[in-house]
Amino acid sequence: MDSVENYLAEVLAGIRPLPSREIALADALGAVLDGDVRAQWPLPAFDNSAMDGYAVRAADIAGATAETPVVLPVRGEIPAGSVEPQAIEPGTCMQIMTGAAMPAGADTVVQVELTDGGTSAVAIREAVALGTSVRLTGGDAQPGDLLLSSGTRIGPVHLGLLAAAGHATVLARPRPRVTVISTGDELVEPGNALIPGQIWESNATMLTAAARQAGCPARRHPTVRDDTDAVLSAVAGALEETDLLITSGGVSMGGEHDVVKAALATLGTVNFRKVAMQPGMPQGFGTVGEQHTPIFTLPGNPVSAYVSFCLFVLPALDALQDFASERAVPSPATLTRSVRSPAAKRSFLRGIMHRTASVAGGEPGAGATGAAGAPEAAGGVGARAGQITQVTQVTPVAGQASHQLASLARANVLVIVPEDVTSLEAGAAVDVLELP
Amino acid sequence: MDSVENYLAEVLAGIRPLPSREIALADALGAVLDGDVRAQWPLPAFDNSAMDGYAVRAADIAGATAETPVVLPVRGEIPAGSVEPQAIEPGTCMQIMTGAAMPAGADTVVQVELTDGGTSAVAIREAVALGTSVRLTGGDAQPGDLLLSSGTRIGPVHLGLLAAAGHATVLARPRPRVTVISTGDELVEPGNALIPGQIWESNATMLTAAARQAGCPARRHPTVRDDTDAVLSAVAGALEETDLLITSGGVSMGGEHDVVKAALATLGTVNFRKVAMQPGMPQGFGTVGEQHTPIFTLPGNPVSAYVSFCLFVLPALDALQDFASERAVPSPATLTRSVRSPAAKRSFLRGIMHRTASVAGGEPGAGATGAAGAPEAAGGVGARAGQITQVTQVTPVAGQASHQLASLARANVLVIVPEDVTSLEAGAAVDVLELP
Repeated sequence: MDSVENYLAEVLAGIRPLPSREIALADALGAVLDGDVRAQWPLPAFDNSAMDGYAVRAADIAGATAETPVVLPVRGEIPAGSVEPQAIEPGTCMQIMTGAAMPAGADTVVQVELTDGGTSAVAIREAVALGTSVRLTGGDAQPGDLLLSSGTRIGPVHLGLLAAAGHATVLARPRPRVTVISTGDELVEPGNALIPGQIWESNATMLTAAARQAGCPARRHPTVRDDTDAVLSAVAGALEETDLLITSGGVSMGGEHDVVKAALATLGTVNFRKVAMQPGMPQGFGTVGEQHTPIFTLPGNPVSAYVSFCLFVLPALDALQDFASERAVPSPATLTRSVRSPAAKRSFLRGIMHRTASVAGGEPGAGATGAAGAPEAAGGVGARAGQITQVTQVTPVAGQASHQLASLARANVLVIVPEDVTSLEAGAAVDVLELP
Repeated sequence: MDSVENYLAEVLAGIRPLPSREIALADALGAVLDGDVRAQWPLPAFDNSAMDGYAVRAADIAGATAETPVVLPVRGEIPAGSVEPQAIEPGTCMQIMTGAAMPAGADTVVQVELTDGGTSAVAIREAVALGTSVRLTGGDAQPGDLLLSSGTRIGPVHLGLLAAAGHATVLARPRPRVTVISTGDELVEPGNALIPGQIWESNATMLTAAARQAGCPARRHPTVRDDTDAVLSAVAGALEETDLLITSGGVSMGGEHDVVKAALATLGTVNFRKVAMQPGMPQGFGTVGEQHTPIFTLPGNPVSAYVSFCLFVLPALDALQDFASERAVPSPATLTRSVRSPAAKRSFLRGIMHRTASVAGGEPGAGATGAAGAPEAAGGVGARAGQITQVTQVTPVAGQASHQLASLARANVLVIVPEDVTSLEAGAAVDVLELP
């Protein structure tokens, strides 16, 4: 049997990243940058005001106080977006709005709250320092500065920055398009009546949603009957608008009824094997079609299918974008009850993780407000003292069989039990993978 | 000035949850359940096989060993999906596939790997225990069992469970539809040339993506000029397909150029105020239209707009689904360098957080594999010993002004500095909010 690592390595080695292309910003959320983005122009592109107020020369207001304000004539007003070049003479000022270009001759902005708000002349009540409330050209980035590194997954702020730097499109690898096909004569659409022997289709619904939750456009193919021609036809038909294919079912060890295996084996480009894990032992991966589209043949048991999706398909989706996957990094936790695990297989038990923060030692900090602030109030908690640590406990759920979807629905992590461990006691340290 | 808490409380008090409706499973990812979902039928609905193998009576194979296999006649085969009632006589067996209904008279499944795989007669090499590899009716859930609690945000596994339980739709509150309108005569679409005084529009692109990243369908309205009628017309036009409106810009303290403020003030349903925070002091919130659609008037500075989105709009989006928000819970961290903050305002400084796991004490556990496993290999790390804690450090980025989007793009957290703190030293404990 393959180890989990070997199988994952084989999967990743079989993935070719999608070609990058110029993507409009409106469609680029979640795409992965191909190439560094550097500033072509300074950001901001011109000196401008950070406040609504008055553009002045700092030297002219050096003596201003509340008792002895400096009064300057106001030579007009500069709204944001004004493109007429403006200038002030010494001893004068102009009203200026946030974001408006500084007039030539001015070096400082006095915010309106420090004045009487006058429009023909203004009394300035404070001698603000030279350069106050002026955003200098290039103060956020200079031409040539690295704005975003190649390989960055593009988030909302990155899109804002690209737009602010003048880009309408970005060279990136798009999110892979996923198609999910479930197979099986036993499957009936939910909402219809069942006869004993049949079950409601659930895997394709689940896996399509899982791919969407991972940010990918995903669609569900209608359920395919247990017929090799039907399977091959569904796969071929899905290829055109698909960057990654997932099938569910038809890959267990029983022979001719495993139609997915039987059908795809004829292509010679999909490998089936057992992986030393539980759940999820029967796995298949390969490529199909002219574009070498990756295909996963996931097991039909829903827990096996979902665990396989998390362990293998999510990293493959990242690999299609040439993105260094960060999804499956385990974190440490402490078991609250004992568990058993089969020999020579890595178990991924479903568990519920609880995190507890604890503060150890340290001196009271300035203005500490303590941890008692209402957590739902955004930022309701302030600075605190001491070394802060987190302790994480995990409780395996009841119902660890691979058909027990109700148990999986209660879990938020997978508890990893290594191949050479067959039991662990309460209190043991384990690694857990957070479910997405 | 309002405190952050008071303002957020006012926002949340002004939100009416969207009505719940029956949503097709394919559209229900991220919707929030309105009402508990209980099992109507047992899950599984009939006894079935967990393996490909042979359905037998355990009593008939009690003496089987590798040396003295028990040979039973095979009375046929039951594929998954077969709906013909089947039965076996004592002393006989049937081939059975994973998921197929158990024949009457059988109580145990012997997996094919423990047999010679015969089709007319089979030699069974191991006396497996009664009930082995049989999934009993109701073994995952009994009728009446709680499957999903009201208020659950529906994820992929929940959708799978709903489908497996026979539901084609679910009663839930959908994700709110968001429209983002940016305003300002200074704004030019990226890709076009600028004249000094103009800037490229970035806020609407950023905020639309932020709403999408939060799972919501979101669209960007074309930029609106600085004209009160144009603002009112854009708002009215957006209402039909919008559950939450966001404007950006036009709300600072400068008077008649603040067209969003001027326009919406005429409606009497939107309140403008200063909130004691930096960035993001000028805020506006209220409702518009017959559906009392919530509207946020975010500041035009991009950092202010994004911080405001995270602090106020994200909880409001959750509130529209009557979902108890978990987004904005701060976590503890230690500053790596000193910071300054204005008096009487809560600062949300942009920072880069690093987490470090450390293992303290404890005895070596059974089969511990250590932390040296390659983290990119899913589940590559096994059980470990001792008490495991995490230490989190945060480094404020250079460039904390509210127009410095390039700095924000490097950050992954907001560092919270309370109102009564004007400086913190390196090593101080602070709360941080992870950016989404």
